Amino acid sequence: MVTGIIGAIGMGDFDSFRRRGAFNFMPQYTSLREVLVDHNLAALGDALVNFLYSLARSIKEGTPLGVKVKGRLLADALDGVGLRQYLPPRTTRHERADAAESLIFYAWARGVVTLEEEIEILCQKDDATEAFRDLLHRILSSLPLIK
Amino acid sequence: MVTGIIGAIGMGDFDSFRRRGAFNFMPQYTSLREVLVDHNLAALGDALVNFLYSLARSIKEGTPLGVKVKGRLLADALDGVGLRQYLPPRTTRHERADAAESLIFYAWARGVVTLEEEIEILCQKDDATEAFRDLLHRILSSLPLIK
Repeated sequence: MVTGIIGAIGMGDFDSFRRRGAFNFMPQYTSLREVLVDHNLAALGDALVNFLYSLARSIKEGTPLGVKVKGRLLADALDGVGLRQYLPPRTTRHERADAAESLIFYAWARGVVTLEEEIEILCQKDDATEAFRDLLHRILSSLPLIK
Repeated sequence: MVTGIIGAIGMGDFDSFRRRGAFNFMPQYTSLREVLVDHNLAALGDALVNFLYSLARSIKEGTPLGVKVKGRLLADALDGVGLRQYLPPRTTRHERADAAESLIFYAWARGVVTLEEEIEILCQKDDATEAFRDLLHRILSSLPLIK
């Protein structure tokens, strides 16, 4: 199994998948910063984030919608939970958006949060930046070793 | 609950979500064609398909990857399982790709197939068109009322 900065592997969706090592493709991160600056993980996280937010918006608006989440919004959400301090100086907005995407994927893959819970959190606010800030807050609340 | 062309609601991931009516935003489809030609559902399905395939490719290749699934490939997969006959004449390739995306979302939302199973199927073939054809086959095998 993957071991890393989170001690306990959570229970939730994809548990059998997780137990069979499906997420072993993730590098063995030893710090939060390593997760945040992994651009490959961000590319996968981008696909997850667009799916989660498209589903959340569809539920909220009562009609199927496909939404591409703007990088600016993710970067602002990352700043809003104080994660900028974990990134190198002069990190661009694009890199901060990538960092948010990496962390959201990582947290789900490690079982810290389920897809259902992520969607529910994203449904709770009308403002997308606030919604993602709340999601990052929720994720960070379960990563005690790195706060 | 949503009722439509599938009699039974499957068991799997997102069951509590489903029971609470999270997918009630989907129209009440009365035929397969209605699902296949719903462009709004396709936009949401596009986000799901890109997420599923990005994760499947990451697992297969042993490194995180974000992949945008090409429409041509989805259109070919749709043709490969004989679904073109359910679409209007002179349907474009883009519309056939949309139809595949709509159906993949619909099947998951109705509990016909879980995300885990979808990812496993997509991992089993190196050729992406074959992988999506197998996924559509699996979905259609559980939709007896419409075949």
